[in-house]
Amino acid sequence: MPSTPLAELPTADLQDFEQAVRLRYDSFATRGLKLDLTRGKPASAQLDLSNALLTLPGRDGYLAADGTDTRNYGLLQGLPELRALLAPLFGVTPDQTILGDNSSLGLMHDAIVYALLKGTCDSTDPWSDEDRIAFLCPVPGYDRHFAICEDFGIEMIAVPLTDEGPDMDFVERLVAADPAVRGMWCIPKYNNPTGTVYSDATVGRLAAMRTAAPDFRLFWDDAYAVHHLTEQRIQIASIVQACAKSGNANRPFVFGSTSKITYAGAGVSLFASSADNVRWYLGRMGKRTIGGDKVNQLRHVRSLGSTEGLLERMDRHREILAPKFATVVDVFARELAGTGVATWTEPKGGFFISLDVLDGCARQVVALAREAGVELTPAGSTYPHRQDPHDRNIRIAPTVPDLATVGPAAEGVALSVLLATTGALLERRAGAGA
Amino acid sequence: MPSTPLAELPTADLQDFEQAVRLRYDSFATRGLKLDLTRGKPASAQLDLSNALLTLPGRDGYLAADGTDTRNYGLLQGLPELRALLAPLFGVTPDQTILGDNSSLGLMHDAIVYALLKGTCDSTDPWSDEDRIAFLCPVPGYDRHFAICEDFGIEMIAVPLTDEGPDMDFVERLVAADPAVRGMWCIPKYNNPTGTVYSDATVGRLAAMRTAAPDFRLFWDDAYAVHHLTEQRIQIASIVQACAKSGNANRPFVFGSTSKITYAGAGVSLFASSADNVRWYLGRMGKRTIGGDKVNQLRHVRSLGSTEGLLERMDRHREILAPKFATVVDVFARELAGTGVATWTEPKGGFFISLDVLDGCARQVVALAREAGVELTPAGSTYPHRQDPHDRNIRIAPTVPDLATVGPAAEGVALSVLLATTGALLERRAGAGA
Repeated sequence: MPSTPLAELPTADLQDFEQAVRLRYDSFATRGLKLDLTRGKPASAQLDLSNALLTLPGRDGYLAADGTDTRNYGLLQGLPELRALLAPLFGVTPDQTILGDNSSLGLMHDAIVYALLKGTCDSTDPWSDEDRIAFLCPVPGYDRHFAICEDFGIEMIAVPLTDEGPDMDFVERLVAADPAVRGMWCIPKYNNPTGTVYSDATVGRLAAMRTAAPDFRLFWDDAYAVHHLTEQRIQIASIVQACAKSGNANRPFVFGSTSKITYAGAGVSLFASSADNVRWYLGRMGKRTIGGDKVNQLRHVRSLGSTEGLLERMDRHREILAPKFATVVDVFARELAGTGVATWTEPKGGFFISLDVLDGCARQVVALAREAGVELTPAGSTYPHRQDPHDRNIRIAPTVPDLATVGPAAEGVALSVLLATTGALLERRAGAGA
Repeated sequence: MPSTPLAELPTADLQDFEQAVRLRYDSFATRGLKLDLTRGKPASAQLDLSNALLTLPGRDGYLAADGTDTRNYGLLQGLPELRALLAPLFGVTPDQTILGDNSSLGLMHDAIVYALLKGTCDSTDPWSDEDRIAFLCPVPGYDRHFAICEDFGIEMIAVPLTDEGPDMDFVERLVAADPAVRGMWCIPKYNNPTGTVYSDATVGRLAAMRTAAPDFRLFWDDAYAVHHLTEQRIQIASIVQACAKSGNANRPFVFGSTSKITYAGAGVSLFASSADNVRWYLGRMGKRTIGGDKVNQLRHVRSLGSTEGLLERMDRHREILAPKFATVVDVFARELAGTGVATWTEPKGGFFISLDVLDGCARQVVALAREAGVELTPAGSTYPHRQDPHDRNIRIAPTVPDLATVGPAAEGVALSVLLATTGALLERRAGAGA
């Protein structure tokens, strides 16, 4: 590790450094590893924590607390006991919640579809009647959010993230001025990929801000509500309560799921909001289904036991995940600190580390890492239309590899960063000198 | 039971008959029964047939045949072994199928939503860009199909049903003439509520007919594909194969589910169609979810075992259901045959008996039955916008009551029919004489 930032090294020293890095990179590549830091999937060991689900609810265990036969049709809003168990985690009451199938993405998608085709409960017309609909998109953010907007022709306006959440001066100006802005994506806790936690001041401003559109909605994807990586169970202000207090009760659509609490493929999702929005959503959803999978909802109640039981399960997840995150951060610190060509987050929760490299180098880093045997999320994925204007952000997902391989994977990334950025610096000098 | 049709009785005799019926009706009503013939739900005994699901897939049983960890994200199209098990029942190959969550209604709803917002793979524009979109609706039909159309402002054109399915002369004329007709609801086997089975000739004509709209789609709800009430496992021509043979491979969207095979609330749904449509549907669905509940899909494979195992499970359902249907038909025959004021179906499968009463009397029959303690589906439900132009059709769902109560329930209905129609006949004579 050089004690001077790479950009400040004399060209000869930088060339020497590049030479040394290339030797290490080549040596790493010849190991022929196959490592994957792409998607935010739980590791097998995390899934094992919920294997009680594999034999639940049990032979005689299909009746809900109120006697409902969970095997049959009905109960559109979802099992009351699971709504009661989950509601406190999202700062709402059980009657403010609806349970969905295994995918909260589906609830988000459908909320947009319903708004497009029918309008929200505060809309005068369906959104699809408008020439232009826009969503604010804090960046870097989650590719699947952006993909829904892209798919339906919804314009995306990138919003810079600060340490406290989206740049609120920017947001307030935009939503006040432009009635086409109808929505905003928010991952308020442990943002994907930056780990950003919205401050209570940010939550308050989002709840209170004046919007030109009366049917503006916060798409509040609370995917990591309880996914702590430290012993601190960080709590943020309830957006549903904050909006109600500000007289904008219908503003938030809150989404959550047990995908990263129990099983990623077989969990239960949740929608939470005001009474009006819950009524609106149930009205729409009732055309689509007679009810969700209540047996699976009951399985979850039996497996988790209580809200506290769920939080304890999350402690077990943390014990598995925290060392992996620490390893990546250690390797990055060892290899990249002081180089001035990379910064990275040290998240207190969530599933990702966000790595920013020298502008214009992210795609090259991802390509080099792949050649060396480490698969990364494509550069640009964290931006609308997969276009990172600075080509600098890379999302690192350290959850799937086991602890023994996450270090080598991070090393492969670090070497790719050093090689790509050193190369770019030398090229720029050559270009400037030519 | 009178040997002469009620309408042909002299008025004095008809008044005597009404008197006798009213005594029986009042006596029935004083029994204070609470019977329900409304929705097509499986009985508890039917659900019990699949209680292996309550402890499946088992502690170490979460790996699919190809080693996929069903607990994690992924596998958008669904578990290959369950697709292989179900495909033959719908006349398709496994690669022509996609698995959904517990609700095939959701797949139908989403197919319409995707067509409205994006267009089908054969559309030049999204359907929602058109001033007018229309669906053909064979009647009597399924209220939830019609509710989706109503919700999205899709015009519904009622099509009469014959013993071989929809009146094809009528259908062919309409679809050839009107490019706004983009879809048609079909329940090809054991139609809800009439039990009608489409003949192979009907299937062939639906597949081959010329349509003005190049993106016309058959919404082929094969909800009762294996739901036989006799020992005969009726097979009909495969709409997917027939359409392919006629050069209209993309015409059918086939929907099915295990809702009435395993658990109504916790089954697996299925979409089947041509390669182009499967690609189109997966493309849309992939914005909505990362994959379905594969653990539940695996549970179903383990519980059903094989296609033949599924058919054997359906034999057990038949043993529970056939006596209930026979009881209703027996009671109707005993009380109503020869009266000329009612006809009813004797279905060879499905979940319903369709009862037609003297025109203008269905609402009154339902009201009288309720007062006597028998809940029926609201009259009109089987027609678009809940408007039966003749006010004559009533859907009878005999599956939920146990065998001991289904007879009394049918008797309550029959007495209500006799009372309502006799009253109407007498009123009409009084009106004609006035």
